[in-house]
Amino acid sequence: MNAQAFALHPQLLADTFPLRDLALSRVLLMDDARYTWLILVPMRADLRDWIDLVHADQHRLTDEIDLCSHALRTVARPDKLNLAALGNMVPQLHVHLVARHVGDAAWPKPVWGVGERTRFSPAALAARKSILLAELTRHFER
Amino acid sequence: MNAQAFALHPQLLADTFPLRDLALSRVLLMDDARYTWLILVPMRADLRDWIDLVHADQHRLTDEIDLCSHALRTVARPDKLNLAALGNMVPQLHVHLVARHVGDAAWPKPVWGVGERTRFSPAALAARKSILLAELTRHFER
Repeated sequence: MNAQAFALHPQLLADTFPLRDLALSRVLLMDDARYTWLILVPMRADLRDWIDLVHADQHRLTDEIDLCSHALRTVARPDKLNLAALGNMVPQLHVHLVARHVGDAAWPKPVWGVGERTRFSPAALAARKSILLAELTRHFER
Repeated sequence: MNAQAFALHPQLLADTFPLRDLALSRVLLMDDARYTWLILVPMRADLRDWIDLVHADQHRLTDEIDLCSHALRTVARPDKLNLAALGNMVPQLHVHLVARHVGDAAWPKPVWGVGERTRFSPAALAARKSILLAELTRHFER
């Protein structure tokens, strides 16, 4: 289990855009313009469940969730943050962090499997990535 | 924000049975015999999102998730553990921890809103509570 052996699952690669790497996690932006939706993937090989992480990494992941959540709050001003590590379809450990708004495309249901996703236009993607990256960096450097 | 002002949300009270209190969280068993499904509720007042917890409590919650996950693995031998803090319907911060099996009632979808729940019979409930409580206590005392 080391970072060198880490490779992003092809489904995550296809569904997301990379934002930046933190100490433990690669932070991805889900390609669905209906939500502001981040995915954190700990850069360790052979992880399926949260508890496959060693103790220090569990705390590190919690800290990175906190950092990303604060960035999401600033950028998207959500009514609720949804946090989940499911992995029934994509077995590689990954943590969803979704800014939810009352009345959004799935509200109040969970986001998975509801309706058809809306891919970002190139301009919308560039704008969203830029503002998220700035906020992640701002919180990271604190 | 103190434990004295904590009160369990009426919906959680109606849907679950208490198992035991840990240092931070009350551990509940969801009254749905289709799954082995725990819910952890940090015993602090006025929490909505994970990041409303102070830093030390975020780590404490992570440790209690780890403990409960190990108990779930021993009792239910799941193919996958699902972890989620959603709270779109019940705003009080609570963490779902569900032992999932390939072919279970919702597989591979998330469990929320799929089919009708099956309440435990008194005998099945007593048996499930007893084995879960024994495992939680065993891991807690390590």
